[in-house]
Amino acid sequence: MVYLTRIEHFNAAHKLYNPNWSREQNEVVFGKCANENWHGHNYELYVTVKGTPNPDTGFLYDVKKLSIIIKDKVIEKIDHRNLNIDVDFMQGKMCSTENLAMGIWNELVPHLPSEIKLHCIKLYETASIYVEYYGE
Amino acid sequence: MVYLTRIEHFNAAHKLYNPNWSREQNEVVFGKCANENWHGHNYELYVTVKGTPNPDTGFLYDVKKLSIIIKDKVIEKIDHRNLNIDVDFMQGKMCSTENLAMGIWNELVPHLPSEIKLHCIKLYETASIYVEYYGE
Amino acid sequence: MVYLTRIEHFNAAHKLYNPNWSREQNEVVFGKCANENWHGHNYELYVTVKGTPNPDTGFLYDVKKLSIIIKDKVIEKIDHRNLNIDVDFMQGKMCSTENLAMGIWNELVPHLPSEIKLHCIKLYETASIYVEYYGE
Amino acid sequence: MVYLTRIEHFNAAHKLYNPNWSREQNEVVFGKCANENWHGHNYELYVTVKGTPNPDTGFLYDVKKLSIIIKDKVIEKIDHRNLNIDVDFMQGKMCSTENLAMGIWNELVPHLPSEIKLHCIKLYETASIYVEYYGE
Amino acid sequence: MVYLTRIEHFNAAHKLYNPNWSREQNEVVFGKCANENWHGHNYELYVTVKGTPNPDTGFLYDVKKLSIIIKDKVIEKIDHRNLNIDVDFMQGKMCSTENLAMGIWNELVPHLPSEIKLHCIKLYETASIYVEYYGE
Amino acid sequence: MVYLTRIEHFNAAHKLYNPNWSREQNEVVFGKCANENWHGHNYELYVTVKGTPNPDTGFLYDVKKLSIIIKDKVIEKIDHRNLNIDVDFMQGKMCSTENLAMGIWNELVPHLPSEIKLHCIKLYETASIYVEYYGE
Repeated sequence: MVYLTRIEHFNAAHKLYNPNWSREQNEVVFGKCANENWHGHNYELYVTVKGTPNPDTGFLYDVKKLSIIIKDKVIEKIDHRNLNIDVDFMQGKMCSTENLAMGIWNELVPHLPSEIKLHCIKLYETASIYVEYYGE
Repeated sequence: MVYLTRIEHFNAAHKLYNPNWSREQNEVVFGKCANENWHGHNYELYVTVKGTPNPDTGFLYDVKKLSIIIKDKVIEKIDHRNLNIDVDFMQGKMCSTENLAMGIWNELVPHLPSEIKLHCIKLYETASIYVEYYGE
Repeated sequence: MVYLTRIEHFNAAHKLYNPNWSREQNEVVFGKCANENWHGHNYELYVTVKGTPNPDTGFLYDVKKLSIIIKDKVIEKIDHRNLNIDVDFMQGKMCSTENLAMGIWNELVPHLPSEIKLHCIKLYETASIYVEYYGE
Repeated sequence: MVYLTRIEHFNAAHKLYNPNWSREQNEVVFGKCANENWHGHNYELYVTVKGTPNPDTGFLYDVKKLSIIIKDKVIEKIDHRNLNIDVDFMQGKMCSTENLAMGIWNELVPHLPSEIKLHCIKLYETASIYVEYYGE
Repeated sequence: MVYLTRIEHFNAAHKLYNPNWSREQNEVVFGKCANENWHGHNYELYVTVKGTPNPDTGFLYDVKKLSIIIKDKVIEKIDHRNLNIDVDFMQGKMCSTENLAMGIWNELVPHLPSEIKLHCIKLYETASIYVEYYGE
Repeated sequence: MVYLTRIEHFNAAHKLYNPNWSREQNEVVFGKCANENWHGHNYELYVTVKGTPNPDTGFLYDVKKLSIIIKDKVIEKIDHRNLNIDVDFMQGKMCSTENLAMGIWNELVPHLPSEIKLHCIKLYETASIYVEYYGE
């Protein structure tokens, strides 16, 4: 078993705001992250897959093809977007890094080829905060 | 003459959108950066000042005090904000990294102590794009 | 189960010196790390906690509160300190990165809220050396 | 159990080229990585070992000695080399990052002292691609 | 005057070898960099241009268009190539980082639009070596 | 004219403490940096030299030889040392990053070969603070 990781980037706006709460309560809980006019981040996305290298290529899976899948199925939906408004798979959820990492996992899984299995989604929100999700 | 640089961070939303143009023209010129629902970045701000070290302290200027000035006069206005809507010194300007760097220069200059002179504002928008402004 | 990591920094002096050994033996074993006048590092501390996101916030735990706990309970004791002299939880131990990581684990565990569990302490001593401790 | 990681670097040339295939097929599968005149990378190698710290030193194992073993047994063979031509342990294998990580594992294991066990070889080929191998 | 920098990457093979010298002399002067079977690097290229922001866009020049020019006119010729063999503008020159930076300058200058001027080519060969060229 | 930069590292202890002042005044001015038991840093040193590449080698100067000069004449004196106590060229000076950068300049200049000229000493004290000195 070998693990292969591809790192991609996207830039998005979001806010942390629970619509069931008053604006005051949102500010108490989320502070400046609740700014109603949004803020944003350069997210860094680590996608780790696992499997056995193919003896003909030496590859677990062609990392350029993996990059294309990640871009087509995930980055396209979230890059230069507003995570609260524009992203179908985040509708009705709080736009935390935790939920975004889990959402990305669910988007990606159906599109990976059978020779590899998704192992981990790691998502940096800033240079000092990241989340990891292993699918369970 | 010695140069001292302090690096600070802020996270903000923005869009590139010229209000004098149609939405179509904005999309032609700015592409996905014109997304009307905003996107955002983790900006990295390098503030370089110059001067002569004080023999009693060895300091050009206390870098912790420099950090406080940058935070009070600049970061406070732009961190977790929408650059197009929330920031007084960007009103009426396109929210490009170029204009933001020049705006930060103008905000900072009046608040620096006399023993140091602002030398450069360097601003990373993403890990592969940055702008430098030397005040002229 | 989701994993959330917060990265903090501290700067400290230390030496590697076993008081039960002669100075010569310390120099043989630890080389220049045994310099009796100390040396120091910019340590980078990764604290990883695990748990289930709260549906109301999307958070495993508010990462700003996690940062405050780390700063109050750990960084405050070790930042700008001499690890051999100034730090209560390193008394009587060799000041290696291994022991420091384990010491930080023990300091932090009693102060974490019940909704999260400490998963890993990862500690960079230099850009090319780090230690990880998972509590057992 | 504590995990200690040492990071080393090497610069090497390689190509991805299956000698059992035509040049056309190699180009279809490997694209510009099949360039017959080679290309190259700055590889970044993370070697993680595990064990219990020695109470006399606080060390799992002296990281400078670990570095010497990695350099003598691995880096010496692959740094400023052509991975396809010059490296004995890559003969007859595709020069993928996957195979290189597994080859490095096998080279290193016999030379580690009994007090530590090899846990992981992590190998960055570029800043956005890395492979991890845990020996099974 | 504002300075805008775009960072691009390429991976290439090369060797340092003066064909007018014996193999022995090449090894004395260039050491392992003279390995006749090549070695390689992940180069990091910083292209800095200068000019005045356009008031309609806030841009010195559209950084995405700048990236396309760099890729079309420079990266295309050197990425996944052998610098000694495959690159027209390095023919007859020693493949040092110094010469490569100057060669990239000369390749790029004729293709930049009139509103910007090339200011600096900065080229990292490894994480601890880089060269800067300002055109004179 | 081409500029060549070599990056080296060293780890040192220091304190900011003016012996002409009371301990209280030192604490007011320098805060926790005045801790009498020292603290320390992983310093990152950028040495930039300038000159004209030699047509036979393509080199401004052999960067490995430059590295040896820096290590022999500077790093040897400051790595794993106490900057206030152990370093001859810092005697009688405040151990600020400003003074250290200027001191390194003066140590290095007499040992550089005639074909290159020292252009800049850039010294990172932490990831968010650095000083540059150009010799005048």
